[in-house]
Amino acid sequence: MIEPKILKGFRDFLPDSEAVKEEMIDALKRTFRQYGFVPIDTPCLEYSEVLLRKSNGETEKQVFRFNDNGGRDVALRFDLTVPFARFIAMHKDSLYFPFKRYHIAKVWRGEKPQGGRYREFTQCDFDTIGCDSAASDAQSLLLISSALDSCGAGRVTIRVNHRGILTRFLDAIGVSDKAEDVLRAIDRLHKAGKDKVMADLIEIAGGEAAEKIMQYISAGSECKGDWNKTLERITDLAGGEGEDTKRLKEVRDILDECLNTQHSALNASYILDPSITRGLDYYTGIVFETFLDELPDIGSVCSGGRYDNLAGLYMKDKLSGVGASVGLDRLIAALDTLGKRGASQYKMDVEVFADENSTQAKREAAAASFRAAGLTAESFGETVKMGRQYAVAEKKGAKWGAFVKGEGVTLKRLATRESIDCASLDEAIKAILIASQSPSRLAGNKRGN
Amino acid sequence: MIEPKILKGFRDFLPDSEAVKEEMIDALKRTFRQYGFVPIDTPCLEYSEVLLRKSNGETEKQVFRFNDNGGRDVALRFDLTVPFARFIAMHKDSLYFPFKRYHIAKVWRGEKPQGGRYREFTQCDFDTIGCDSAASDAQSLLLISSALDSCGAGRVTIRVNHRGILTRFLDAIGVSDKAEDVLRAIDRLHKAGKDKVMADLIEIAGGEAAEKIMQYISAGSECKGDWNKTLERITDLAGGEGEDTKRLKEVRDILDECLNTQHSALNASYILDPSITRGLDYYTGIVFETFLDELPDIGSVCSGGRYDNLAGLYMKDKLSGVGASVGLDRLIAALDTLGKRGASQYKMDVEVFADENSTQAKREAAAASFRAAGLTAESFGETVKMGRQYAVAEKKGAKWGAFVKGEGVTLKRLATRESIDCASLDEAIKAILIASQSPSRLAGNKRGN
Repeated sequence: MIEPKILKGFRDFLPDSEAVKEEMIDALKRTFRQYGFVPIDTPCLEYSEVLLRKSNGETEKQVFRFNDNGGRDVALRFDLTVPFARFIAMHKDSLYFPFKRYHIAKVWRGEKPQGGRYREFTQCDFDTIGCDSAASDAQSLLLISSALDSCGAGRVTIRVNHRGILTRFLDAIGVSDKAEDVLRAIDRLHKAGKDKVMADLIEIAGGEAAEKIMQYISAGSECKGDWNKTLERITDLAGGEGEDTKRLKEVRDILDECLNTQHSALNASYILDPSITRGLDYYTGIVFETFLDELPDIGSVCSGGRYDNLAGLYMKDKLSGVGASVGLDRLIAALDTLGKRGASQYKMDVEVFADENSTQAKREAAAASFRAAGLTAESFGETVKMGRQYAVAEKKGAKWGAFVKGEGVTLKRLATRESIDCASLDEAIKAILIASQSPSRLAGNKRGN
Repeated sequence: MIEPKILKGFRDFLPDSEAVKEEMIDALKRTFRQYGFVPIDTPCLEYSEVLLRKSNGETEKQVFRFNDNGGRDVALRFDLTVPFARFIAMHKDSLYFPFKRYHIAKVWRGEKPQGGRYREFTQCDFDTIGCDSAASDAQSLLLISSALDSCGAGRVTIRVNHRGILTRFLDAIGVSDKAEDVLRAIDRLHKAGKDKVMADLIEIAGGEAAEKIMQYISAGSECKGDWNKTLERITDLAGGEGEDTKRLKEVRDILDECLNTQHSALNASYILDPSITRGLDYYTGIVFETFLDELPDIGSVCSGGRYDNLAGLYMKDKLSGVGASVGLDRLIAALDTLGKRGASQYKMDVEVFADENSTQAKREAAAASFRAAGLTAESFGETVKMGRQYAVAEKKGAKWGAFVKGEGVTLKRLATRESIDCASLDEAIKAILIASQSPSRLAGNKRGN
């Protein structure tokens, strides 16, 4: 006998969790498609050389890498961005630009499994490539709102910044040579707190610069989230107007127009927050993080930004892009915490029970007829005790039980055990369809829950 | 510069192919759910010990296996059945039985990549566990028909057999000790042809037995596909009635009742074919293969059967089950060949063009309004030449172009370039919705294609 176990940091998904995950992914896909994004897929396994050239030592340590049976040095992808860059370089002649793609798939990282971190998890990325405009920046920010709304996440706050203006500011105060370390330090603000970041900044850039940096990144909260005031403030601190401040103004104009349109239903606030840096070195334009208004402390559930050279490792053409990644695991955990995730939308409509008053053939044919009417239906596969059959039907969230008797059917509303005798299958189908359309007519109907 | 390349036997999916794959998987999921099956997921990477104990040397050679950074001996799953057995043993106390699950996910095999065989491919499995009845056998056969129908596969023929009666027959003619080799030889019938199989059988079991076996497996075609006649014939050859023949009769009764029901729309024929064996040694009850009526030569697009001890390697309880796997790659290839796959259902409804007569903010707000009305819409992200904008819109299958002018909108039907001037966004939305509901009213409307 082999012990049935799984690797640390890996997970089985039982039906209730998997159904919710599946439905959330479906909702994201529908939203991505509605915004004009198209799906792609890439291999889970790639040449290590292709995946790892750019990454730092941290990634190397975390990646699942090995020699395959043919002696090739291969690795499981650790994100969807590097494969996408390789994909663009390989297929650019078959694509059109701007190219808007989404990719929802698993990635693997050998991180220490703890606090909601897994070694296998699903990323949901969307990117617009080959277009450097305020419009595509704004589209990404609008899509985040719609995508999270489609998952039932409630109102969100999207905190936006621009790496360009931050870079100019660091230039202006003379610490541009330490920019990367400064960015990483600032990026820890929400996790580590002001005091820790201040201490780090003093160590990196000295007391005077640290003071100025803290002033800069606090501009957002000091201006109480007012986009234009904050923008004025950091424009001053960075030494005046630039392409970056112009872009932030244009993006805001677009967002405002959309928020003001009576038709649009954007469940989001957009704030200019100079403390958002996204730590990673490849962003060059806007950067952003997204927080649930009802549970901001769980951290960003969707982050991203603009980069100016996605596929530079693999091709000569420079392609600018803007994209983001929805943190599905964190989002599901948050909705769980908020009691908002609810059960899966999946419910059985009709369980055809197996008893001695009917043949299995008649029961199967009844189930097939219910399905042909668009209902979800199964017939119980064996004539076991009714208690067990009811228990399974309830486990599956069935709304109706059905007993076949000759040409007739007795329906049983499982919530109340109320019976309805129907002279024929047609009548039974009609009764179920009517009850599901007008919940008020019959007590106990739970359709739509 | 790194050469952007992928591993042999692995594939990128560009948007057109990926959208079709995604929609086909969605159709399968909907059908699985309608029949009362629920989703699960398991890790792609597992302990080699868990995945490989039962498998033969062939599998060992093909599996992607390595030591992870923690020195654990791990492997990528090569099917969804072994992980499912492990899953059942681990979680049996949280599940209910009969347990009906589907699992659509990638698996990896280091096979020689050729003729439609890939090293990474998607399996679509569904199984019913903990119920050994004619009803659950028949349900599987019904579901295959509905699932393939939902993919647009057209009419199919499902060839059914029972391993029990075949085993009894081999006993009766005294070659039960060579049963496994005989099964494998028979399994090659459709690929290798009668003469080759006969030669193999003579080598395995001698001339007399080979003759009898050929007679047995030809019973189906000799009885011209008549289930009952074929059943009578092989019952005689196997030495009389048994549980197996009784089961085949019950399954046929259920199928007949469902096929005769006016409500059911089963696009399938069911044939009893004694030459179907499925080669693999773990099947113990019915076995089946599915062929497209319009392209039978491509081979089975959905195969499976009943086994009596799914999780025996990991637990003491014996659980019988019946299941099948849809060959998604082969199915997509077949639909391609038949010209039936068609393009993805995904079409853009409205492309809001970027010109100098409007601001980007107004265009984004217009796109947001179209989306709020349930349409798929994007605004073009930059004011480039109109020719390029039209080209992208056409690449995305957009039905309408929209030019924003002040409060008004000029719609352009892209198929005919016909223009419709609308005084407001509301009017434009109404025009599109009306046109999409009544294709006859306006020429050139392609909705639903």
